[in-house]
Order: sequence, then C-alpha cells, then structure tokens
Amino acid sequence: MSNDRLIYLPLGGAGEIGMNCYLYGYGPEGQERFIIVDLGVTFPNMDTTPGVDLIFPDISWIAERADRLDGIFITHAHEDHVGAVGHVWNRLRAPVHARPFTANIATRKMEEHGLDTSVLHIAKPWPETVQAGPFSVGFLPVSHSIPESSALVIDTPAGRIVHTGDFKIDTAPVVGEPFDHAQWSEVAKPGVRALVCDSTNVFSGHPGRSESTVGPEISKLVSSLDGMVVATTFASNVARVKTLAEAGISAGRSVCLLGRAMRRMVEASVQSGVLSEFPATISPEDAREVPRESLMLIATGSQGERRAASAQLSRGKHLGLKLNDGDTFLFSSKTIPGNERDVINIMNAFSEMGVDVVDDNEGRYHVSGHANRPDLEAMHEMMQPQFVVPMHGEHRHLREHVKLADSLGRTGVLAPNGTCVSLSGNEPKVVDYVETGRTYLDGAVQIGAMDGIVRDRIRMAVNGHMVVTLIIDEDDAPLGEPWVEVIGLPEKGRSNAALAEVVEADLAQLLQRMDDKTLLDDDKLDDALKRQARQSANDEIGRKPEVTVVVSRLS
Amino acid sequence: MSNDRLIYLPLGGAGEIGMNCYLYGYGPEGQERFIIVDLGVTFPNMDTTPGVDLIFPDISWIAERADRLDGIFITHAHEDHVGAVGHVWNRLRAPVHARPFTANIATRKMEEHGLDTSVLHIAKPWPETVQAGPFSVGFLPVSHSIPESSALVIDTPAGRIVHTGDFKIDTAPVVGEPFDHAQWSEVAKPGVRALVCDSTNVFSGHPGRSESTVGPEISKLVSSLDGMVVATTFASNVARVKTLAEAGISAGRSVCLLGRAMRRMVEASVQSGVLSEFPATISPEDAREVPRESLMLIATGSQGERRAASAQLSRGKHLGLKLNDGDTFLFSSKTIPGNERDVINIMNAFSEMGVDVVDDNEGRYHVSGHANRPDLEAMHEMMQPQFVVPMHGEHRHLREHVKLADSLGRTGVLAPNGTCVSLSGNEPKVVDYVETGRTYLDGAVQIGAMDGIVRDRIRMAVNGHMVVTLIIDEDDAPLGEPWVEVIGLPEKGRSNAALAEVVEADLAQLLQRMDDKTLLDDDKLDDALKRQARQSANDEIGRKPEVTVVVSRLS
Repeated sequence: MSNDRLIYLPLGGAGEIGMNCYLYGYGPEGQERFIIVDLGVTFPNMDTTPGVDLIFPDISWIAERADRLDGIFITHAHEDHVGAVGHVWNRLRAPVHARPFTANIATRKMEEHGLDTSVLHIAKPWPETVQAGPFSVGFLPVSHSIPESSALVIDTPAGRIVHTGDFKIDTAPVVGEPFDHAQWSEVAKPGVRALVCDSTNVFSGHPGRSESTVGPEISKLVSSLDGMVVATTFASNVARVKTLAEAGISAGRSVCLLGRAMRRMVEASVQSGVLSEFPATISPEDAREVPRESLMLIATGSQGERRAASAQLSRGKHLGLKLNDGDTFLFSSKTIPGNERDVINIMNAFSEMGVDVVDDNEGRYHVSGHANRPDLEAMHEMMQPQFVVPMHGEHRHLREHVKLADSLGRTGVLAPNGTCVSLSGNEPKVVDYVETGRTYLDGAVQIGAMDGIVRDRIRMAVNGHMVVTLIIDEDDAPLGEPWVEVIGLPEKGRSNAALAEVVEADLAQLLQRMDDKTLLDDDKLDDALKRQARQSANDEIGRKPEVTVVVSRLS
Repeated sequence: MSNDRLIYLPLGGAGEIGMNCYLYGYGPEGQERFIIVDLGVTFPNMDTTPGVDLIFPDISWIAERADRLDGIFITHAHEDHVGAVGHVWNRLRAPVHARPFTANIATRKMEEHGLDTSVLHIAKPWPETVQAGPFSVGFLPVSHSIPESSALVIDTPAGRIVHTGDFKIDTAPVVGEPFDHAQWSEVAKPGVRALVCDSTNVFSGHPGRSESTVGPEISKLVSSLDGMVVATTFASNVARVKTLAEAGISAGRSVCLLGRAMRRMVEASVQSGVLSEFPATISPEDAREVPRESLMLIATGSQGERRAASAQLSRGKHLGLKLNDGDTFLFSSKTIPGNERDVINIMNAFSEMGVDVVDDNEGRYHVSGHANRPDLEAMHEMMQPQFVVPMHGEHRHLREHVKLADSLGRTGVLAPNGTCVSLSGNEPKVVDYVETGRTYLDGAVQIGAMDGIVRDRIRMAVNGHMVVTLIIDEDDAPLGEPWVEVIGLPEKGRSNAALAEVVEADLAQLLQRMDDKTLLDDDKLDDALKRQARQSANDEIGRKPEVTVVVSRLS
C-alpha cells in the first residue's frame, strides 16, 4: 500500500479564530477517503460583511467528493465548531458524531433545517472509538470553556493523529471532566505522528489558570455589592454560569437567567447529564417582584451583541427589568478583538444610568478557555509528536506556534486554510493548494464571498448611490430629460443648488451633444451617463457615488 | 457684579476620547463672553459613519454667539485637539492662540482652507498670559506624547481654572519640557476654583511610566535583530520617533522616515525649535540601496490606517521597499479600541511574509501619554481645587473620575457634552443643557450627523438596494411593466428564478389590480410598489431591501 497517503487539509480555522473545518484523508492520491473535523461558523461585521447573517467555510471541495466522505466529527458545541452543521449538511450527507452535550446542540441545528437527526450518532468517550472508513476516531475528554469538549484520537494506517480541538489544561474545571494527564499519556504511548493543536493563546506567556480560580473572586465581589447585580459571560460557558449563579445564591440573591442562549445551554447541560446540580433560578416575571438588592441576573451578550440581553438592558427596560443608579454590571468575560466598540458602547450606556461596570479586572473575574504558551509546550512534551500542526488561529498564531514547536526540537507545519499536507512521509509535505473561501448566509440565501454582492453594498455605504433614469422614445430620441435620485448623498454641494438637479442639468447637456452611436447602444449610453453623473457629483460634493442607470426604450 | 457667572460647556470630548472642544464663558446670563479651548476631530468607522472623511463637534451653539467669542486656545497639536480648526474657523472668526509647535501645525491647516493665518497668535509659556475678554489665559507646559503640550491657567473674576489638556506627569519626556512640580505648585498657590482634568487613563491603576523608560528596551531589541527593522508609532510622538531613530543609529542602521505625517512632524519640530538634534535620515530612494540588515524604517500607521505607510508595506512593495522573511516589524504603540481589526489584519499580512511582529509587549516598547489613576490623584492633590471637572473621556471615564474626586474629599462634576455648568457659586450647578452633536466632513461637504444621509448608506449596506422604475403613459395607465434593478442583493432566491424578475412579475400583477386612486397619486403609488417589492424580496431571499421607486409620468 505504498501508494496510500495521509493528508490534512484545513478549509477553515487555520487563518482565523473561528469557522473551524478540517479534513483528514487517507488512501491513494485522488481516491482518499475523508473525515471532517468540525463545521463551524464565524460572525460578520460592518467593515467587511455588512448585512450578512453568518459566515461559514466554503465546503465545495469536499462537497464535490461527498461520496468519499465517511463521517463528520464535532469536537465541542461552540458555534465556531458546530454552527454550520445545519446549514451545510445537505451537501455532505455523512454521519455526524459527537458526545451527548454537543449532539444535543447539534440536534437543534439539524432540526431547524428540517434535517433527519438520525444521522447524528452519540459517541462514547475514549477508549471507545468510531470507525469511519480507514479512520478509527476516539473522543478524548479535554478541558475547555464548554462541557464535554474533546480532542480526537485519529488512528490511521499511517499512524496516530491527536487533534486537540480547543483546549486548556485544567484539572479543576468546575463542570465537566478535569484534564486527565494519565489518560493523555496513555494516548501518547504508542507514538503520535502528528499533533494538530489549538494555537489561540500562543502569544500568552504566563501559565493558564483554572476555571475554579474565578469562583471565590466573583463570590467576594457579589457579596460586597448593594444594588442589583447583573453578570454576563458566554452562555456556553456553563461552568461560569454555574459559578455566577452560586455566587448570587450564596450572597442571598435570587438568580434569573436572561437570554434564550443562556437558558438553552443550561437546559442542554441538564438534559445531556453534564450538569447535575444547578442552583434554582427564577423567571424574569418573578424577578420583577424581587427587591433589587436581592436579585442577580445572568445575561447573554458579553460581546456587545445588539440583540442579546445585556445590550437590551443597556438600552433601558428589558422584560420589565431595568438597571439603576447603584446597580453593578459585571463582564465575566473578555472582549474578542473586533467587538470592542460594541462592548464599550454598552459600558457607557450603563455609566449614563449610574451603573457601576466591572470588567474582567485583568483576569480576576475571567479566565481563558485556551492553553497558554507554557501549556502548549506541556502538550507538545506530553504527546511527543513527530509533527506539530498548529490550527485554530490567525496566520500570526499559526506561525508563532510553528516557531515554538521548532524551538522545542520538533517539526512544526505551517498549513493555513487550503494547504493540503501529506503527513505520511518522514517529513510533512505540501502536496496541493486548494481554493478555499467563505460562504455567507444572507437572509435566506447562501452567497459566495466573492460574488460581488457584499462588495456592492460596501460601495454604496462608502460612496452613496445615485439612480439615473432616462426614457428613449420610439424615434430613439430622449423623451424629456434624465431624472436623478440620490440616496445616502448630501442634498446640496458647492454650488448650493440641489445635487440631483445639478447632475440632471449636466446629463441633459450631455444628451444634447451625444451622437447616435452612443444613444443607440445600451452599454455605451449607460457608460456615458454614469461617467458624467460621477463627474458632476465629484465637482459638487467631492465624491464619486455608485451610479445605477436605468434606460427605458419605448421602441 | 453679582449677576456675572462663570460657565463651562463641553461641545466635544466629554463623552468620547477625541473631538475636544470646551467653552468657558463669563458675564451676566445670556451676555457671557466666551473662549474656546481646543477644536479637535475624531475619526469615522464603517459601523456608524461609512463614507465619512472626518468628524468634528457641531459648533452651531457658539457660532451663533460668535460675536461674543474672544479667543480660541489650542492646548497641543494632536488631531483631536487642533484638527477642526481649518474646517470651522470661518464660522467663529476669533483669534487663535497656540505655542510655536502647535501653531506650526495649525498654520498648515488654516492654509489648506485658504484662511488668513494672521489670526494665529504664537503664545509664550506661563507665566506669560493672553488677555481674551474677561479671561487671562496662560499656557502652562505639561508633559504628554507630543511636544509643547500645555495646560491652560484660566484666570477669571470668579477665580482660577486649570484646564489640564492631555497630560501625564513625566519628569524625563525625552523631547520637550519635563513636568515641573515647582511651577505647578506655584500655579496652585492662589487657589484653584476648578481643575478641568484629562480622564483617559482613570481605569489604569498602576503609576504611569516615563517616556524615557522605553528607549533602552527599544535599543536592546533593535540591536538584537538581523533583518530589516520597521517600527511604527504615532507620527506626532516626536520623542518616540527620536528614540526609535536613535535606537536604529546606535545599532549601526541607516534610518528612513516613511509617511508624510512622520516627516511633517519632525519638520515642524525642527522649525519650531522643540527639536534641536534629530539623527540623520535617508530618503526612501536611498533606503532601497541599503542592505536590509543595515536599515531601519520608521513608518506611519500604527492604528492600521489603510493609506498609511505600515498598511502599504503590509500589502507589498511601498516606494520600492518590501519586507521579507527574517525582517521585524515593531508596534511601538497601543491599539486604540475600535482599531483592533485593522491592526490585526496588518499583523497577519506581515506574518504571511515571514516577518516577525513585535507589539508593545505589555508596555515594554510603549508608554501612554496620559496620566494614570495614581497620577490623577497626585494632580488633584497638587492643585487642591474646589471642584474637579473630568473631561477628555467617554462617559464611563468621566463618571469614574468624578467618583475618584469625591473619594478624595473634593467635589467632582459630571458634565458630559452639552452640559452647561456654572462654576462661580459655592457649589457647581448645571444651568443648561445645550443640544450638541457631530458634524461630518463628507467629501467636500459638511453634513449633520442627524441629516439621515449616513443612515441611508448604512441601510443600503445592511439591506441591499432595489430600484423600481415604472412609466405611466399619457392616459395614466402603466406603459409596459415595471423594471427592477438590484444592487447588493443575491441574484436568485428560493424559487431559483432571478430575483429581479420575480419582483417584476409581482409588481406587474399588483398594477393590474390597482385602483385608479392609487395609480394617480404619486405617494400612494410609490408606497404600494415599495411595499410589494419588499414583500416579494422577503419571500424570495428572506430580506427586505431598501427600495427606490422612480415613476415617470408621460402626461
């Protein structure tokens, strides 16, 4: 079988933090059998993706080879690992494997798209394994910021791969399985060909802290406060939500969960058995009746999401609850780069209400779910892999992680999205570059990032939009004068006359001196009107707008 | 003169970090004479101000009272303090006072707008003063991150105000005047009625560090590196630029300044005499000939600005210079909240080139220009003011600073933009709320933030745009069918037919069953077409676009 090769191909997640999607293939070139690890999403922003609802990896490459796909494995239930499963499964149609909590979340996503959930298979933890074509895959429990996170132990004829998923090394994670050094060492024993490893926190030089360290600090804070207390964190960080709730209870407060995602996650944790005891909570309706000094709300929206509970509270009354002077709002979270403006807006809105805002306080009220640099080193050391393949990071994280691996005497492999690497030889080898990209969920439609649709939106936002309409009569002559509408443009410019009228006059003049060749040719006419409109606008307002020309020919 | 009052009214800067503009008034109510302190700008972003070029405070309130304005005082040459002077001076027409370096920068701004620069008066430092109506104003040197920053000592019949401007307490600022405790104590001696004080770093609990502490660290770093070194910082931080240049020279490298702002600032420093010795630099043309290990570039664009030198370098060759594997890029700066995405994009672009990116390294290669909390406390202590009026901060900074003042036993005054406070009584008193806002420079035109122009752009960006055209003939009947163009919308939706055609068909049907009353009424017809177009689009693509309807009546 010297023809067979083991390949690794990231379609997402190796070039960004988010949107994870990794392929492993084994077999003769062009006939490999595949598995997918994770099908995640990332989130749009005004800068690059205005109007877009959700972003996921372009899976065309593997969709075209779906007949050779033997399984989809989801490491954990964060949106950037499971969020796309409902949106793209129809193009893949392979069994989906996940542990109970993750499967619970995935089920809802499949159901929302009317998909048959019988393709979802609940996996038992390592040392149990799932056979998928040439791959034997085990879910190895690992600590992270959501219950039942797993690394994958992927055994292939070419050796063992350990795909860490997102992880930290936490022996007291509050909820879920502690990091089990003995079990991991056992996995490493037969030899690991490649460690495919989380890179998120490679730039954090200090050792990571346990989830259990924040509880006492949060308790101390909450019990010192007088007014209403509201705390926010990621809804999926069930351990943190529990810690916050317990801090509230032990300070003699009634606890209310605000936000659908928050309630759903706690519900999924109980249903799937990862959470046996969660403090009693009250409904928002009941919370209204509780004196504010005896109330603690735990709310969604730690990243400033406009529609989440925290943002709603920052805008005023939400479900009958309202923050006041003397209340306290705690961000038990860290702001993900890019979300700063939204989070700061909320902080200032609360400040205007007289609410004290407490942030993570340099880690006092929050710890990361990812392994810091010293913990990454410990992981390399524990696994003793032949190759280290950094994933889950922007390019700078991957590159730094490769340098770290190299500095520790191992072979680091830099493989950004689309890089197909053979891992079966003595040295890793880039065997192909695959075109990768992003798919946008836009309303009810999936569009490609390169379709030009979002580009046109950005252009209208940056340049404004001008609509020019013209009627050409049966004799191929302009009927009346051109009509101009402006949207998102100043009404008046340098001449202090209405912009639309100035442009109309210029276009009318242009038409008077226009030759028949241009007037009779749709493209030429369109182009000439567009060019003049842009030029006239530029003279008036110092800006060339996007121009749409609509010519109606009565002939 | 018991009728006279001393009032303070921020028009910008008390509710944001940026766009500073503060009014002081003295006299009988409604007849006060005014001075303006600072006329700054802030910068647009895609989230809230797409297409906008620059933002400055709406100065209408004081422009309407320009006959009572006795002077404009600029504390220092940062854009958020001096940037609007050229754009709005025509509406104010009062003398502008600044120290030489600041005046040098302001002169260029006046000249760019064709303004007569003879209204610019160069001020000498305290104890010299300028008389402006009832105000005697002295420029009290203070350390900050740009040369010749000044606090203002504003003497009024109601007592002394110390307006700190932006400041830190730095006794070794590398360039410019060290903080002079003796001089400040002297100013405090006669008693200070109000300290109007920078709030930027009120949340930073540790004592601030001197500019002089970064030099040795930067030198150590630069001399340890092999490839080309590029460093970026704010161009206006002349001390830092000098430190970087000296680090390059002492490591045996030729130094080249990249970016117009960088060269302009050094030039202004030399011209105005604040910088006597700056290391010899070479031109970009000459830099191309220097071996990369002997070259250091100092580039604009520390905040990821798209057109600045750093961003240009991250996109490839710039002025014949190009970074390669083994080169190093140093951010001797901190990312201002909101600029993270742009900065990270640059970091990743360099990473893809194999360039090592070094950030401020938790303060090793950068220090802030603003006073941290302990330094603010020291300032309160030094000045012993009756009132503390926090400025230069978002609402949360102002509020925290008020709490700090109160906790130290003084009277803090929370006065966000538009709050007119009387400072002449025994207690500060809010006497008025003035409508404030923002003015956008949009191409060549100044528009109001509330004009709806930018709102329309955002709507087109988020929802896409649909243009519906319809011709009504001489008999008031539709001529042919409506025509639909889509911009920034998916071409096909649920039915898999062209979106434009689906909407056209629906609109044609609508017209067939439309009564004459609607057909003859422009507004009703417009509204009906718009509603149907939005509904049809929503059915097809799950999104209601912005719709512009153009009806041409041939009658």
